[in-house]
Amino acid sequence: MWIRNCWYVVAWDHEIPPADAPTLFRRVVLGEPLLVYRGSSGGIVVLEDRCCHRHAPLSAGRREGDCVRCGYHGLLFNRDGACVEVPGLDKVPPKACVRRYPAVVHNKWVMVWMGDAQRADPSLLPDNFSCDDPGWRYLPGYLHYETPWELIADNLLDFSHLSYVHAATLGGTDQIAHVRPTVQALELGVRVTRRVPGVPPPAYYRALWDYTGLIDRWIDYSFTLPATLLMHSGARPAGAAQDDERVGVRFHSCQALTPETAESTHYFFQESHRAEQGGPDTTQRIFDGLLAAFLEDRQMIGAQWHNMALPTDRPMLPLAMDAALMMFRRKLQTAVDAEASAAVAASTP
Amino acid sequence: MWIRNCWYVVAWDHEIPPADAPTLFRRVVLGEPLLVYRGSSGGIVVLEDRCCHRHAPLSAGRREGDCVRCGYHGLLFNRDGACVEVPGLDKVPPKACVRRYPAVVHNKWVMVWMGDAQRADPSLLPDNFSCDDPGWRYLPGYLHYETPWELIADNLLDFSHLSYVHAATLGGTDQIAHVRPTVQALELGVRVTRRVPGVPPPAYYRALWDYTGLIDRWIDYSFTLPATLLMHSGARPAGAAQDDERVGVRFHSCQALTPETAESTHYFFQESHRAEQGGPDTTQRIFDGLLAAFLEDRQMIGAQWHNMALPTDRPMLPLAMDAALMMFRRKLQTAVDAEASAAVAASTP
Amino acid sequence: MWIRNCWYVVAWDHEIPPADAPTLFRRVVLGEPLLVYRGSSGGIVVLEDRCCHRHAPLSAGRREGDCVRCGYHGLLFNRDGACVEVPGLDKVPPKACVRRYPAVVHNKWVMVWMGDAQRADPSLLPDNFSCDDPGWRYLPGYLHYETPWELIADNLLDFSHLSYVHAATLGGTDQIAHVRPTVQALELGVRVTRRVPGVPPPAYYRALWDYTGLIDRWIDYSFTLPATLLMHSGARPAGAAQDDERVGVRFHSCQALTPETAESTHYFFQESHRAEQGGPDTTQRIFDGLLAAFLEDRQMIGAQWHNMALPTDRPMLPLAMDAALMMFRRKLQTAVDAEASAAVAASTP
Repeated sequence: MWIRNCWYVVAWDHEIPPADAPTLFRRVVLGEPLLVYRGSSGGIVVLEDRCCHRHAPLSAGRREGDCVRCGYHGLLFNRDGACVEVPGLDKVPPKACVRRYPAVVHNKWVMVWMGDAQRADPSLLPDNFSCDDPGWRYLPGYLHYETPWELIADNLLDFSHLSYVHAATLGGTDQIAHVRPTVQALELGVRVTRRVPGVPPPAYYRALWDYTGLIDRWIDYSFTLPATLLMHSGARPAGAAQDDERVGVRFHSCQALTPETAESTHYFFQESHRAEQGGPDTTQRIFDGLLAAFLEDRQMIGAQWHNMALPTDRPMLPLAMDAALMMFRRKLQTAVDAEASAAVAASTP
Repeated sequence: MWIRNCWYVVAWDHEIPPADAPTLFRRVVLGEPLLVYRGSSGGIVVLEDRCCHRHAPLSAGRREGDCVRCGYHGLLFNRDGACVEVPGLDKVPPKACVRRYPAVVHNKWVMVWMGDAQRADPSLLPDNFSCDDPGWRYLPGYLHYETPWELIADNLLDFSHLSYVHAATLGGTDQIAHVRPTVQALELGVRVTRRVPGVPPPAYYRALWDYTGLIDRWIDYSFTLPATLLMHSGARPAGAAQDDERVGVRFHSCQALTPETAESTHYFFQESHRAEQGGPDTTQRIFDGLLAAFLEDRQMIGAQWHNMALPTDRPMLPLAMDAALMMFRRKLQTAVDAEASAAVAASTP
Repeated sequence: MWIRNCWYVVAWDHEIPPADAPTLFRRVVLGEPLLVYRGSSGGIVVLEDRCCHRHAPLSAGRREGDCVRCGYHGLLFNRDGACVEVPGLDKVPPKACVRRYPAVVHNKWVMVWMGDAQRADPSLLPDNFSCDDPGWRYLPGYLHYETPWELIADNLLDFSHLSYVHAATLGGTDQIAHVRPTVQALELGVRVTRRVPGVPPPAYYRALWDYTGLIDRWIDYSFTLPATLLMHSGARPAGAAQDDERVGVRFHSCQALTPETAESTHYFFQESHRAEQGGPDTTQRIFDGLLAAFLEDRQMIGAQWHNMALPTDRPMLPLAMDAALMMFRRKLQTAVDAEASAAVAASTP
């Protein structure tokens, strides 16, 4: 289940080869094959990676300037997706084209609009500022999941799992699960705030802050449609004033889920620390710790998905900790229904 | 196709970690995920390996005394399957539980009752005595099959295949196929008796009995629901009196099939020899020979199953040698129908 | 989609073990398992590779003279597919048999008739003469495809792809795609003729003809039901008279597609050169170049098939270059419909 009229992350900016490279980048999003490349004068191009002729992937062909030639029978497409040459034909049939998707690089994320191109709205781009801010440092992460994106969203919407899945990495205390977070509705999602006072620091902090006393942790994030997590988090020595920015650690994290198919997902993530904190290998160490934790998630969610393949007549049991994920699922359902209604209305004369 | 109100072997006793071990044992039976562990004061616990909350496997969590904590969001379940703690909640919802299955260790087999717990009946446990009798020696065997259990049952119900599948291991002569066995109906299965006079000894005997003359072989087994083979077998020098127990070899074998899913199977097996016969490596050599033979079966049944995936309008052709397997299939069908009727009756007001 | 009343290539002659070899050859054709072996007095035998008793593959058994004994329960089948022995039974049930398929070795191809045996017609065997003519030299090739045979037929029916898929191997110039071929209907297929004047020689020619000037290429092939390509091709120095056989290169190629299942295919191929041309390693070098090119095809067709698994509401767009493949698809459809009608008529009293 997904919506179409929104921006999805299709890739990190660094994943797309430079304009003069011979390789072409392919990624499947919402079950549609996409070809992503850079225009020679800048700008990103996203085309349907399926030649209109025999459905071969254009990514198996080659670039010719700002055009792409299909590697099967040689049809040439320009950056608008229009076919401009069919070898052996004097005239190109008007129907010969592939779909072009609105796309933009926004704070290092290559964003693609999968719905009605007329409605592509830059104001809906996520505020993933720390991906592109010299005040913050991070390494970009990507994981591929062989599970539906909804299960990963569920995971990100209930941080009580930090106490158990990530006991040795991001968590470090059962208290994260024991405190109750504040959950607020946003227009396009959910905001979750959690305060965890007087707990030991997680292993993950060590790269940045070698403090072994008790700390007050805070986690504050939004999770909005289609599936973007933007989070401020950090910690101070237990009892320090909340407005004292001189002590402790602060992070900003940007994470996005992009459905590949109904049963597989692209996961883009980073967790930024302040540029003025830490030494030369801090960013790498933080990334390594984060990746270790996210592999813990993937293992658990994979095991959950594997279990879900075994039929049972007992549905999942909702608990208080599911407040945010249930609120988000309702937002999603509403948005999916609205798109379906709009499609029906549009096709009715 | 299977019945539920019966005991299935879920594991060999030695497969289940000790009570103080950190690992948790999972096995899927009849398409249901099971968690198997030992209580701290003895006794075996079998719970549904699927947390009632988000369906994660409990086996990915950890033991806490006789309880198991889910590794995803920390729900704690006791050995009855009742949830006794939900982190962050003062009170556990009454619906929070996982299914507990009646289970017992019986002669080294961990047996689980998959049907109505009220009906779990110890008198139905198989008489696999040689798994736990100092007068007999064996090594326990396990194989996983990627085929339906019915095909393996068919195999075990027609030993004429010993002459062909196991010519170089258990068979050694075409005569096994050429003699006609006696097939008798039992209440819950079939009894098969076969006498093979005046044949050379199979390779498999050499570990125990270095006799190269002709022998009289005898094979006598029951195969009962759900899928348990219990067999006495042996041989004497050709012409020796049938009641002369001083000469020749004797075996007792216990084998059980447990459906994992409709298309995969757990196979537990042993073949015991008398403790007073043979030297220090006899038991290992017999096991090695048996395993080699059972891998021959798995290869053949896998090839058969692979062939069965290719459609044909010609069904299998029943032959006289199929008497036992057809009788067993009818017993199975009758038992499955009876369970279905009982379920309908129970749900009718 | 396929027809049954025709000859399919099941193997190259050299793939079938000699009559005295212990191994048995199995290959699935049209979703049916086939056992192929040589009679002791010559002749090829093709039987259904599925014992009538429990559907085990006979190829897992053993030869006994001209008979094959099932390796599961020992049924013995003669070269007509009749069961001649059931171990333990005095009399063989009349229904005990496996299907025998008409088969013949024809110019190194082992051909099997998959339809009504009464209609097996040697006059329909393909004219793959160069597979068995001392005037020509080649090495036999085989590739397995995990794609439907129709996509490979499409590929072979539009050589414009030589310019793109095979730019570095068989092609060498965009001109192949730019010229328009002549397409003629045959009774059972299509004839395609292509002239490509004044182009550089492809890399592939070098093994035979070290000519670096411009050449006139010609390609002339038939593609007939079920899926056989027979091709004369070659080149002369640009401008040389078409009837001057003293200069340039000539090839004859025989290629056949045999559906394994609806989604996988056997591909048999060769490309012969004149025996009097070239040195000791010419044939191997030509084969190596051909195989490299056919692996390019398999990669592209595999990518196309992979793309076709992603749903789209836009069908493939027919272009002028598809004339031959569309004509062939119509011939195929007509033949399939005719077989279906004949089957209905035959089953109507």
